[in-house]
Amino acid sequence: MSRRGLFGALGAGALGAGVGAAAVFGSDVAVQAATGNFPAAASATPFFGRHQAGITTASQDRLYFAAFDVADGMDRAGLIQLLKEWTNASARMTQGLGAGTEPVSAGDYEAPPEDTGEALGLSPAGLTITVGFGPSLFKDAAGRDRFGIAGRRPAALVDLPAFPGEDLIAGSSNGDLCVQACSDDPQVAVHAIRNLSRIAFGRAVMRWSQLGFGRTSSTTRAQVTARNLFGFKDGTSNLKAEDTELVNRWVWAGREGDWMRDGSYLTVRKIQMRIETWDHQTLSDQEATIGRTKPQGAPLSGGTEYSALNFHAKGQGGPLIPTDAHVRLAHPTANGGAQLLRRGYNFADGNDDLGRMNAGLFFAAYQRDPRTQFIPVQTRLASSDALNEYTVHVGSGIFAIPPGVERGSYLGAPLFA
Amino acid sequence: MSRRGLFGALGAGALGAGVGAAAVFGSDVAVQAATGNFPAAASATPFFGRHQAGITTASQDRLYFAAFDVADGMDRAGLIQLLKEWTNASARMTQGLGAGTEPVSAGDYEAPPEDTGEALGLSPAGLTITVGFGPSLFKDAAGRDRFGIAGRRPAALVDLPAFPGEDLIAGSSNGDLCVQACSDDPQVAVHAIRNLSRIAFGRAVMRWSQLGFGRTSSTTRAQVTARNLFGFKDGTSNLKAEDTELVNRWVWAGREGDWMRDGSYLTVRKIQMRIETWDHQTLSDQEATIGRTKPQGAPLSGGTEYSALNFHAKGQGGPLIPTDAHVRLAHPTANGGAQLLRRGYNFADGNDDLGRMNAGLFFAAYQRDPRTQFIPVQTRLASSDALNEYTVHVGSGIFAIPPGVERGSYLGAPLFA
Repeated sequence: MSRRGLFGALGAGALGAGVGAAAVFGSDVAVQAATGNFPAAASATPFFGRHQAGITTASQDRLYFAAFDVADGMDRAGLIQLLKEWTNASARMTQGLGAGTEPVSAGDYEAPPEDTGEALGLSPAGLTITVGFGPSLFKDAAGRDRFGIAGRRPAALVDLPAFPGEDLIAGSSNGDLCVQACSDDPQVAVHAIRNLSRIAFGRAVMRWSQLGFGRTSSTTRAQVTARNLFGFKDGTSNLKAEDTELVNRWVWAGREGDWMRDGSYLTVRKIQMRIETWDHQTLSDQEATIGRTKPQGAPLSGGTEYSALNFHAKGQGGPLIPTDAHVRLAHPTANGGAQLLRRGYNFADGNDDLGRMNAGLFFAAYQRDPRTQFIPVQTRLASSDALNEYTVHVGSGIFAIPPGVERGSYLGAPLFA
Repeated sequence: MSRRGLFGALGAGALGAGVGAAAVFGSDVAVQAATGNFPAAASATPFFGRHQAGITTASQDRLYFAAFDVADGMDRAGLIQLLKEWTNASARMTQGLGAGTEPVSAGDYEAPPEDTGEALGLSPAGLTITVGFGPSLFKDAAGRDRFGIAGRRPAALVDLPAFPGEDLIAGSSNGDLCVQACSDDPQVAVHAIRNLSRIAFGRAVMRWSQLGFGRTSSTTRAQVTARNLFGFKDGTSNLKAEDTELVNRWVWAGREGDWMRDGSYLTVRKIQMRIETWDHQTLSDQEATIGRTKPQGAPLSGGTEYSALNFHAKGQGGPLIPTDAHVRLAHPTANGGAQLLRRGYNFADGNDDLGRMNAGLFFAAYQRDPRTQFIPVQTRLASSDALNEYTVHVGSGIFAIPPGVERGSYLGAPLFA
């Protein structure tokens, strides 16, 4: 049996679902073929829809996040073409298919494979791919409007202000484009980013990237609250997908959004935790810093995890929830009602020369308008939060997350319409 | 209800299994209490035994690996005490319990918690903790025998030679002690390393550490072969736990081992992959480099994944498995029969300034004697393997893995007997 024969046998068998898709990258035909004709894998999340997936979707366990800069020399047509190819590949990968028209290039044995292969045989494990546009896409550092879109920059896509205490690393911040890949299988998430980067070769360069090994914030009521690396439950009072009215009010851009309607805004912060310092604090101090009990995540004002926080309750030593406790300062009541849909992930990137872990929380929050949500909340936290003693923000980004993609269209099409 | 009251209620309830264990870190009593009196969680792997767990144990999905250097000023008694405390905490954590006698310090609300908390509520997910001793533990860089064990350094624990093409980073290499934490849940693996580091505070300093997000090599026949970031199945012909005779011959130290009998030797290599270069090679080139087909992992000499490699089979262009193919040079027939029990993990640590992924394979191999196993195999591969064009070894380590721990004893006790 020839090698080609072996390969062909597999192509027509186990991977047969992919055979027959139009071999045209980025064309509307291919996009439709890629997702219309194949039975979705059991663990597949729909790609097409009114909103991009990966926002109110139940938080998957693992994350790979990457920011890209569009290469010099790219123009509007080139950017649109890249977004079409990313759309095609994303629509396929989220359904458990290879990034190209074949999992590996059965069609051309003497060409590089159209998929890198490491997710072969794996289910998509809920994979979502969520793409966004940074401020620099609209106007770069040199003030150039490379893609003829400067006039369409959304008012809500402001540059983030400098926050007190942050110590940002350029190589972990900003970017023209972002891609959030979430899956219950990290191999699937890494595969997705790696293939989008491969497809973009010469046209967009990975600026920074981050693996998140464990989810924190839940985004649906069905999920158990997970813990961050301070050992506390994180996201108990996060906005949940089931809170339809609140989600419509606080997450999705509305009529004010023009081409961003049904989109959202993503702010990300790579928050390094001073793990070793924290671990030396007493349980009493840790709980006072957060404002909740460590084992149950109950408010220090009493009750159980989901009990309402009572900021007025006092004990012998003052308020049961201290005035500088994290939960008090982050709470909507302290922020004009503002809420965020958080989608955080724990990270661990080795350690420094003194043996201290480079670990913490990759904070990601979706919102309708950062000017009235993330920015004022973070301004308050950065100045007063008791937790600041144990954290430093080392990465940052803000991105406009365009609305979802209709079948036959591509990511960000309304921006270029 | 007081905060203490809330806490106490939980301590006696959901976490009640931990209550009643002797609150003596590192004592034999505590070790026995920690693992003898509690029902093991369903997903718990036994800690005590003839061999350390985490070697022939079915490869868990995720890894956190750390190397530590013992702090200046530590003496033999201090090292033994540290190993006893690590034994105690490891015996507990692998059974799904907190690192200390309580998951959080219910016993002393005004002390730092004896467990950091982020694994509360999680099952151990098969957690194994495997501890080893590096050459520098026996004699440090200054030639000092800090712990009175220089005379007991095993002959098989040689310093690894320099291999052609390697580009080692000191901060990703070597160490006095190593800890391999494997679990199907990365939060559990990170929690284990973090708590052992916390326990060692002031006595051992984390030198380097590595998250592995996805297993490659299978170690049992029940496991499906997983793929590395070249997209190929990795470890098809790995030694498997079921190969009892081969495992006894190639993995466990025997009578020659003195205090190392029933132990093993671990060599680790952090292998950076040139992902972007690889992704531009044709499928034909990729398969010729490895010596197997990409989709099925079948030998290029024919058959299916588990078919024997036929190194003599020739086609029009020469041997079907090229002379410099990875599988040919790594195969036991090319290495005097030598085999390794590999336990590799894919990693992704962000990217460099040119947008290239810092990703690859964290290679770990257990063996009876590196002098006749890893070293000659790697010497051959480093000089001739076609894969060298796409890889560079950036981290390295060799460690003596002492035998398993008997109840009432501690990790490495035979070394100090």
